[in-house]
Amino acid sequence: MDVKIELKKRADELDGPIRSYIGDESPSNLIEATRQYPYAGGKRMRPCMVVSACRAVGGDGEKAIPLAVAIEYIHNFTLIHDDLMDGDVKRRGMDTSHVVYGMPTAILAGDALFAKAFEIIAALDIPSDDMRRVLKSTGTAVWDLARGQQMDINNENSGTVSMEDYIETIRLKTSVLFAAGVAGGAIIGGADERTVEAMHGYAMNMGVAFQMFDDILGIYGDPKKTGKSAGNDIRKGKNTVMVCRFRDTIGEGALMDEFMAVFGKEDAADSEIETARRILKETGCYAYAMDMAEEYTNKAIACLDVLPDGQEKEFMKALAEYAMDRDV
Amino acid sequence: MDVKIELKKRADELDGPIRSYIGDESPSNLIEATRQYPYAGGKRMRPCMVVSACRAVGGDGEKAIPLAVAIEYIHNFTLIHDDLMDGDVKRRGMDTSHVVYGMPTAILAGDALFAKAFEIIAALDIPSDDMRRVLKSTGTAVWDLARGQQMDINNENSGTVSMEDYIETIRLKTSVLFAAGVAGGAIIGGADERTVEAMHGYAMNMGVAFQMFDDILGIYGDPKKTGKSAGNDIRKGKNTVMVCRFRDTIGEGALMDEFMAVFGKEDAADSEIETARRILKETGCYAYAMDMAEEYTNKAIACLDVLPDGQEKEFMKALAEYAMDRDV
Repeated sequence: MDVKIELKKRADELDGPIRSYIGDESPSNLIEATRQYPYAGGKRMRPCMVVSACRAVGGDGEKAIPLAVAIEYIHNFTLIHDDLMDGDVKRRGMDTSHVVYGMPTAILAGDALFAKAFEIIAALDIPSDDMRRVLKSTGTAVWDLARGQQMDINNENSGTVSMEDYIETIRLKTSVLFAAGVAGGAIIGGADERTVEAMHGYAMNMGVAFQMFDDILGIYGDPKKTGKSAGNDIRKGKNTVMVCRFRDTIGEGALMDEFMAVFGKEDAADSEIETARRILKETGCYAYAMDMAEEYTNKAIACLDVLPDGQEKEFMKALAEYAMDRDV
Repeated sequence: MDVKIELKKRADELDGPIRSYIGDESPSNLIEATRQYPYAGGKRMRPCMVVSACRAVGGDGEKAIPLAVAIEYIHNFTLIHDDLMDGDVKRRGMDTSHVVYGMPTAILAGDALFAKAFEIIAALDIPSDDMRRVLKSTGTAVWDLARGQQMDINNENSGTVSMEDYIETIRLKTSVLFAAGVAGGAIIGGADERTVEAMHGYAMNMGVAFQMFDDILGIYGDPKKTGKSAGNDIRKGKNTVMVCRFRDTIGEGALMDEFMAVFGKEDAADSEIETARRILKETGCYAYAMDMAEEYTNKAIACLDVLPDGQEKEFMKALAEYAMDRDV
């Protein structure tokens, strides 16, 4: 299975539903702002995983589409608010929400997408007891997401982020929403409790691998493909898995001094960034991060054992592998 | 019934529950920020109305307390984001969230409170079908609230807000959350559809009267009691019921010029504000606004006819009257 082609095909199928829940209400500037991010595309990994989880446990994928849309709206709501908090002006090549619509409308567009997600969950065509379970895990996921984002902000200003803190942060800011979506898809598909738990575990582990690889891309990715300025994470002093590893293994000394002279230096020259990159590679921190990501990917795939063999199990396995083998 | 004393008593009883849903999680700065507004008090009209509506239809008020807390959290989430959007630095005498915690944490604290509200709704101790109805109306309310806030922002920059636009704006930004809470309380109390509808109508009308009176207080209230700088709404050029009426009835001419010279003038002197105030009174726009607020209050009270006579019906009637007869 070529997972990129399969993912693209499934993402395209979700485009219609994603565009169908926001009607032409007033005021038009807010409505336009709520549509900007979700309509702009993206990999659509989260919504595709919701539908796939539902099918993988033997359910009717159609029934999971509204939850897939809700999870995508929540993801986009967090992106809008993140871009504002970080002061980022570009995303996927387009101007960010607060740049186009101004700060107040960007805040409201995020809030509105979040609200719409819960309206959609309320209307899920499943028994109300199951809807309640989906609601609970989605609500908790967004609470955790906010905690993860705050930890991320706190970490940026801290020189002493442990590997444990780093992993807890990315579990909260990335994995929990994957997991709420995948577990929700399994619930909609009628899975038993043990299967739902396994699907949840799959997504939690996969999310960690995904975010670790995202952090690797942030430093070693091709800016033309990632859409992110190379070296930005180093200039911002972002504590990634590689940086945590570097701190854990390299004691005080010339190498540490050389790295710290660049790390967090907002106006670092490209040559300095290159030095920092080289140091992380030569000290084995890059390789360590790749190994860690692979470990989490393998844990994710092991969780799929509970599923019957078939196309959806293969797709979910391929997605987990793709999470740490992509260029964007 | 002295409604202020009764409201205070009931508000105090809700203090414990309002403080019981946010545990000591990490990171502590975000948790602290989520607690700041809801723990600081306020009139607690919305949560008191949720519990009262439940009791008024013959239900067990205890069962409505979680929804009361959820509605109060949502209200506070919108206040945190509003203060940030408006750049307000003080609320109820305290520094606003973004002043204390910074912009990113204020955004996240609002998002987190919103998420917590839905976690609480998911755990309501009522049949899941009823919970679904409560969820739907609450989700829609927040969607509408964002629309109302955006309309309010758009209106501030517009010289041509009609009375119709004004009323639609305050229905969305104020009434819908009152209504979701009150209808939700009635649903939890086991009310039939007709009664739920009537309770919804009560809160929609009461919310309009409440916001109209808030706009009146914004211009004629005692700053020491309202906590808002007098004349601010005039300096900001806020289109209130009085200003809409003024535009509708006073054609071009000297009086209009005199008013418009002050309206929206950010550095207007106190004497100029006094002139604008006097003009709105002398042209009958203040009296008109009071009449309109009274009309909506009466419509709200008429909706209560569906209820059996009793203490809760009296309290809800008194609350509707209090909405337009308060100094804060």
